[in-house]
Amino acid sequence: MSAFTEKTVQKNYIYRGKIVNLRCDDAELPDGRPCKREIVEHPGGACVLCVRDGNVALVRQFRYAYGEELLEIPAGKLERGEDPMLAAMRELREETGLCARSLRPLTVFYPTPGYSDEKIYLYEAVDVSEGDGQHLDVDEFLRVEYYPVDEAIAMIGRGEIRDGKTIAALLLYQLNY
Amino acid sequence: MSAFTEKTVQKNYIYRGKIVNLRCDDAELPDGRPCKREIVEHPGGACVLCVRDGNVALVRQFRYAYGEELLEIPAGKLERGEDPMLAAMRELREETGLCARSLRPLTVFYPTPGYSDEKIYLYEAVDVSEGDGQHLDVDEFLRVEYYPVDEAIAMIGRGEIRDGKTIAALLLYQLNY
Repeated sequence: MSAFTEKTVQKNYIYRGKIVNLRCDDAELPDGRPCKREIVEHPGGACVLCVRDGNVALVRQFRYAYGEELLEIPAGKLERGEDPMLAAMRELREETGLCARSLRPLTVFYPTPGYSDEKIYLYEAVDVSEGDGQHLDVDEFLRVEYYPVDEAIAMIGRGEIRDGKTIAALLLYQLNY
Repeated sequence: MSAFTEKTVQKNYIYRGKIVNLRCDDAELPDGRPCKREIVEHPGGACVLCVRDGNVALVRQFRYAYGEELLEIPAGKLERGEDPMLAAMRELREETGLCARSLRPLTVFYPTPGYSDEKIYLYEAVDVSEGDGQHLDVDEFLRVEYYPVDEAIAMIGRGEIRDGKTIAALLLYQLNY
């Protein structure tokens, strides 16, 4: 056990929702003093960098939390217990209509470790072909746009791509990771 | 107004905490149908990529949400209304003891746009010098470690660096952004 470990004394659920749960736990600092820890529980997300003929598929959608439209790689929340790779394959197909022969894992990262337990599984689509069109959830409204990878990288610098997972995916790809 | 805009009908606060607030809003989809939107409010974060003599300063700390130690660039939550650059400067000094003559903005990104309004302001430290040692909050337990930038980039590939803002910062730096 590390010298920095904090122990859970009691998990206290405040809210159980559709996307997130919220806890405010009683915990113990490494020196034994009590503390509170606010934790957002999230089942995790899966996303796909899909580059075809040098163009990356980005999804433009309104994000309620910011009141803005964002450009993001296709992504979605995991169902509890779902294989992240299958989820990524499904989201690619549903949001863009594209099909990948396989997905290559790029990385798994933690978007907001200070208060959330979400893990994001990032894949690259291999051998992409046209599928049979979008299949959106009833509350999804989005548009697929294609950008040359170099242009998308430049859009990060201009603040036109602001989504963290999309930035990580594009930069990993550009570095030939 | 975009064709994808969702309207707020009513904001409903479920929890107001120290780090986050939680709302479950009544909202309206672009086609006029009602929907719920679970939103985590967060005041935003500021973080600093600090490279000195080719070595990047990373902070090792236990993250309660994951029950793991993570390596991250120095970072902290904004106080309400605080200038992100001043917050980044403060966190660098408090967590590492290092001082920067100035900070260069790298980017602003959105770590989890599906359910949180957090914005992360990312800076690069310029002209770094030794300060007067760490000044940690009473509930902060962490250790500063230095890694050659190339080694840190390799650690992303090996899953030894998993924090999203740290991955984004290192890759932006490596691409000479």
